[in-house]
Amino acid sequence: MAATKLAAKAVVEGLNEKTIAAVEALKSTGVTPTLAILRVGERADDLSYEKGALNRANTVGVAVKQVILPLDVDKDELLNAVKSLNIDNTVHGVLIFRPLPFEAEVFNTLDPKKDIDGATDASTALLFNGFGGTVFGGGEGPKPDNSAYPCTPAACMAILDHYGYGELKGKHVVFVGSGLRVGRPLGMLLLNRGATVTYCHEFTANTPEICATADVIVTAVGKAKLIGEKHMKPGQAIIDAGLSEGSDGKMVGDTDVDAAEKVGVSYTPSVGPVTTAILMAHVVNAASRL
Amino acid sequence: MAATKLAAKAVVEGLNEKTIAAVEALKSTGVTPTLAILRVGERADDLSYEKGALNRANTVGVAVKQVILPLDVDKDELLNAVKSLNIDNTVHGVLIFRPLPFEAEVFNTLDPKKDIDGATDASTALLFNGFGGTVFGGGEGPKPDNSAYPCTPAACMAILDHYGYGELKGKHVVFVGSGLRVGRPLGMLLLNRGATVTYCHEFTANTPEICATADVIVTAVGKAKLIGEKHMKPGQAIIDAGLSEGSDGKMVGDTDVDAAEKVGVSYTPSVGPVTTAILMAHVVNAASRL
Repeated sequence: MAATKLAAKAVVEGLNEKTIAAVEALKSTGVTPTLAILRVGERADDLSYEKGALNRANTVGVAVKQVILPLDVDKDELLNAVKSLNIDNTVHGVLIFRPLPFEAEVFNTLDPKKDIDGATDASTALLFNGFGGTVFGGGEGPKPDNSAYPCTPAACMAILDHYGYGELKGKHVVFVGSGLRVGRPLGMLLLNRGATVTYCHEFTANTPEICATADVIVTAVGKAKLIGEKHMKPGQAIIDAGLSEGSDGKMVGDTDVDAAEKVGVSYTPSVGPVTTAILMAHVVNAASRL
Repeated sequence: MAATKLAAKAVVEGLNEKTIAAVEALKSTGVTPTLAILRVGERADDLSYEKGALNRANTVGVAVKQVILPLDVDKDELLNAVKSLNIDNTVHGVLIFRPLPFEAEVFNTLDPKKDIDGATDASTALLFNGFGGTVFGGGEGPKPDNSAYPCTPAACMAILDHYGYGELKGKHVVFVGSGLRVGRPLGMLLLNRGATVTYCHEFTANTPEICATADVIVTAVGKAKLIGEKHMKPGQAIIDAGLSEGSDGKMVGDTDVDAAEKVGVSYTPSVGPVTTAILMAHVVNAASRL
């Protein structure tokens, strides 16, 4: 069985097409879907994601309002910035980079209706309790009016759906990494689809053996070539949300792609581009609800 | 290896001893820890749990205030009952039976500080994000001031701790049933302890084989003898939160106890009594914080 690259490009194009149509429909009613990005400080990760988001917004016609605060911002000033965005009727979704100071207070202040990255307690509870919904596809129960899933897990689902792995009832999905941003929330989405779900992590004794029983492996560790031949079996799919710097300075995922090609395992070269496409879809969805 | 019954009695006695000491300390300062039970209608399940809770409260010296509303209660009346309990300074914890009408609104109205069964969005988010804490033992990160875990998963943890299965780093825990009340929240607690966690359920093709690889099986399905010899290996522990009516009319768990005895698997005859002991501990904890 030949390995296929589960490339982000086709997934992004499919999402963008729908988002662009929705943006045009909104603009014809006088509404310009607008994302506010709140950033504290100048972390390289944040700047990199922000750059991708600005490009993606430009492509699909979503407006962006940037709010940038210094790393030594005091709590009142930070919370007031969030409150201003809550009551700003021209802003439909708010992305706040993490980690940030006073993080819990910040997210408890954000209006859940503008939470387009599933970061508030209300969004977390909806995710955990099996509701919530992505904009395009998903189908994990009724879509609430005031919540979105976190964008990276939603992007992983969009990739699975696009490449025909979305019928997950009874399939075994094994996570490597049980982190709060990808593994845990995505596990809930997959349980909602009827998948059997296993969480492996740094303390798991026999991760390769468990992975070798999986239909789908999801990895989000950030360690190059972590997922090798002994984790794989022919016909598997690997969703690789890991990122680390390879020996040549380029960012690479967790998958040993030579091993994947050899065994016949399909894998994502990258998830990130889909994440920003999902972010824009969530903004448009929030704008449509208002 | 001989099978041991992981009896609730010893766990309850250990919990009660600490709760009684805490109640006495509070009473010496003029505070009587008080649980409010809000029940809508007369469901047999609710009445049975309520009876156990009243007995347990009596044993440990926790006062109980009962609020009973008719099944056709209107929304305002129900929400007002919750609001009254929120502002009643003599009430420290509120247990509300589910399912109930207007459930989401009811739990969004309840003050998270009085949520002693982990039912509010704030409690769910803390659980999912790896914080929260039980009163006695647990140790899954800092204990917040305003939240408790759901009582049944906390009871399962208390049983594991009491019988020496609490060191879970790298152990494989397999759930049968991925329900919202037991499986999902307990899975998060176990991930916080470093366990490898697998969720099996009705769509899982090979539940017996997966269970046979587990160090601990947690079952909460409600189907007698579901967990049989082919799920078991010597030395395992089974936490059985399932309940169904056996052929003789008695309530039984999901475990085939003859198979467990034969293979040499330790198992809980029941979890329920520990749940009410945990409930009282949560009430006392809430009273201690005020």
